[in-house]
Amino acid sequence: MTDDSSRAFVPGHVTGFFSVHDADDPEQAGSRGAGLTLSDGVTVEVEPAAETSMQLNDEPAAVEAVTRVLSALDVDARVTATTDLPVGAGFGVSGATALGTALAANRVFDCGRSENELTTIAHAAEVEAGTGLGDVVAQARGGVPIRLDPGAPEYNRLDGVPERTRVEYLTLGERSTSAVLSGDTDRLSRVGVDRLVELVEEPTLPTLMAASREFAREADLLTPEVESVLADVREEGGEAAMAMLGETVFALGNGLSRAGYDAETCETHPAGATLQMD
Amino acid sequence: MTDDSSRAFVPGHVTGFFSVHDADDPEQAGSRGAGLTLSDGVTVEVEPAAETSMQLNDEPAAVEAVTRVLSALDVDARVTATTDLPVGAGFGVSGATALGTALAANRVFDCGRSENELTTIAHAAEVEAGTGLGDVVAQARGGVPIRLDPGAPEYNRLDGVPERTRVEYLTLGERSTSAVLSGDTDRLSRVGVDRLVELVEEPTLPTLMAASREFAREADLLTPEVESVLADVREEGGEAAMAMLGETVFALGNGLSRAGYDAETCETHPAGATLQMD
Repeated sequence: MTDDSSRAFVPGHVTGFFSVHDADDPEQAGSRGAGLTLSDGVTVEVEPAAETSMQLNDEPAAVEAVTRVLSALDVDARVTATTDLPVGAGFGVSGATALGTALAANRVFDCGRSENELTTIAHAAEVEAGTGLGDVVAQARGGVPIRLDPGAPEYNRLDGVPERTRVEYLTLGERSTSAVLSGDTDRLSRVGVDRLVELVEEPTLPTLMAASREFAREADLLTPEVESVLADVREEGGEAAMAMLGETVFALGNGLSRAGYDAETCETHPAGATLQMD
Repeated sequence: MTDDSSRAFVPGHVTGFFSVHDADDPEQAGSRGAGLTLSDGVTVEVEPAAETSMQLNDEPAAVEAVTRVLSALDVDARVTATTDLPVGAGFGVSGATALGTALAANRVFDCGRSENELTTIAHAAEVEAGTGLGDVVAQARGGVPIRLDPGAPEYNRLDGVPERTRVEYLTLGERSTSAVLSGDTDRLSRVGVDRLVELVEEPTLPTLMAASREFAREADLLTPEVESVLADVREEGGEAAMAMLGETVFALGNGLSRAGYDAETCETHPAGATLQMD
């Protein structure tokens, strides 16, 4: 980290179920739903530059939400993001990169914005880029977020499941968030709202996992590969679900490894996005 | 930790400035203002017991807010709290103990409450006990909380200063929160609201510290001892303020030690109250 650069860490986020809420104003658009934030996440470094450029894991990358964040803050910067998470597999890497860019750029350039303002900028950038609807506000919060109302902090309401757990995950392939979100989401959203009502009634991890499995099934998002992994974990008495939107299975505790899978291990992340200490 | 016990960590919280907002409903009553949550905090262990009892740092203790939390959850428990923070000196130890009790008891007794519900129970217990108005919601959030609106999560609005810093603190004596809060708080509250407007305009740490110093002076809460320490820190170019409500000075970075004081050191805490992993 150079003298005039700043770094932020943003947790990954797997969504278990969701509903889509459109609005003309990207700050009011978004999703309701629930998921887990993860101690595996994205580290974003921002430094001033004559021209904006971006790298993800040492490769040149173009993340539209990041460009939009820098442009909303009216700055040009070199953005360097690194992550151990699979990209394009339902971990909210684009949202994390956008939010980390907002936090770090605010510090480097003395933009003087509040946390809610930076979350709002990153959320709107994600919505406008079509790459996510609810990851940013969940990643700004940390823990096991329940998104009761959609949108940026000025409009949304969040709650959380008061638990903390080890998490395993396994990615079988990529899936485009924007391809699903640009399709017909009415049925999916009705199913998602029903699941949210169940979780609010009983805000526990087992309820979250059961609601997520039911959502994936009823919304026709399960692939045969994912379904087969979920069945194996269930057979061993574990709790697993599919990450929205990715060919990814996440499980509580050691659910995947106990069923014989070579899974990555992390934990739920108690904090939201945070700047790193100098 | 026994098999059927659970433990939570809650960050300490120093308030820099505040305004009092009364309401008949303790969930709607509270304070607005801002401060720092601290990596020094309170660890609370809860285990089922035939009769409720409580210890703080290995001594029998009676914290009314804790008794009220257990009674709201309708459980009897042995509560064991430990902290390195000075008690009764403006670090929100009572609020932290109440919130930690709520989180840990919810897990031990499978109460099935959400994070907002547990924060609400602890906030109302603190307000009814007269020992605090804003610590609980700040401690549930973490970071550098700005309390834009008073009350429990259903009623309040929070934001944060997007910074992270080393913090030093020095306690010169005790002060009773309830004695100040039971007096005339109209003038204090007018001053507090003015400071909040300044911080919202420019949500940075220097603005928070300057607003806090101005609040303590204008609200006539400075003692000669605190005033003298603040002057010494300023002379060395540091940023310090007085913790509300305690005979405590807190400073950014190494502000106190640079001015020759033997101060405790911690950091702002990026996460709110969290259960410990099993």
